[in-house]
Amino acid sequence: MRKKNIMNTTSNDKLQFIFGRRSIRTYAPGDVSEETVTQLLKAAMAAPSAAAKDPWRFVVVRKKETLAAIADALPNGRMIASAPLGIVVCGDVEAAHDRQLGYLLQDCSAAVENLLLCAHALDLGACWLGVYPREDRVRKLKEILSLPASVVPVAAIAIGRPGETKEPRTRFNRDFVHSDKW
Amino acid sequence: MRKKNIMNTTSNDKLQFIFGRRSIRTYAPGDVSEETVTQLLKAAMAAPSAAAKDPWRFVVVRKKETLAAIADALPNGRMIASAPLGIVVCGDVEAAHDRQLGYLLQDCSAAVENLLLCAHALDLGACWLGVYPREDRVRKLKEILSLPASVVPVAAIAIGRPGETKEPRTRFNRDFVHSDKW
Repeated sequence: MRKKNIMNTTSNDKLQFIFGRRSIRTYAPGDVSEETVTQLLKAAMAAPSAAAKDPWRFVVVRKKETLAAIADALPNGRMIASAPLGIVVCGDVEAAHDRQLGYLLQDCSAAVENLLLCAHALDLGACWLGVYPREDRVRKLKEILSLPASVVPVAAIAIGRPGETKEPRTRFNRDFVHSDKW
Repeated sequence: MRKKNIMNTTSNDKLQFIFGRRSIRTYAPGDVSEETVTQLLKAAMAAPSAAAKDPWRFVVVRKKETLAAIADALPNGRMIASAPLGIVVCGDVEAAHDRQLGYLLQDCSAAVENLLLCAHALDLGACWLGVYPREDRVRKLKEILSLPASVVPVAAIAIGRPGETKEPRTRFNRDFVHSDKW
């Protein structure tokens, strides 16, 4: 399913896991095993977190009606209704370093990226669907998943067997790079 | 330098890049080439970002006095003074999706995690040093690097040849996982 890294200057098989990860929005039939879900969560929880507080929490969603409800709450994430698996990555502000949302967001985002890369390495397709900071999405996800008051849904990840292929790439832009100071 | 993944249930060579990445805080002598820096930045900019706005910006720091000034500003990041290379990952609020800091933080954190994993894959050692949301650190980094008003320093990454080895691991915690709802 996966194609070779065809980029000139970044063609390095060791780094295929990074450049080959793309947002996959259509899914082929087929389930994702419990063992695979555990692997994805192990990868997510291998990310660094501020003061090693690990404020991340995960809701693994397989119920069709729950995936459909999440899809209804996320205008750009309707495809999660057609995925066999969704993982909602949340953060508990009470558990975060200094109880700061700013740390929680960084920690959860590192975990999401690890999870996406792991999915790709396991030949799955996945897509990061934004929840926070949109208040309506946060409110709806909290309702759908019965989240406690201190738990913030940061992102939903749609996961399944890839139903589309995309070339490896980077959006590297030299204008975004400065040396020693701005 | 790198050891084999010794974890029982996650021992999968394909995923070594995730579980083998650890925070490396001491550095052996030796420089990091310009080509490698470009590779790290390509990996960072291969991360997904909200609405593909790519609000990330990077300051590549090699000057000893600048690294020392950053070290002075980061109480837990003094080791960056002994690293041959620092990359300060910033976000431009003006460039972020909906000009929202909440999106900027997620985008920059995904980029940081990609950069850390790439460093590990290239047999370098790296450590994520928190800047945002601590106001004093943000202010000092903005001064040191002459950042424009709309640019927020999110994290500094110390990078060099690893001066210590650590075992692969995950901090997987089943208590953090819920099924279908909380």
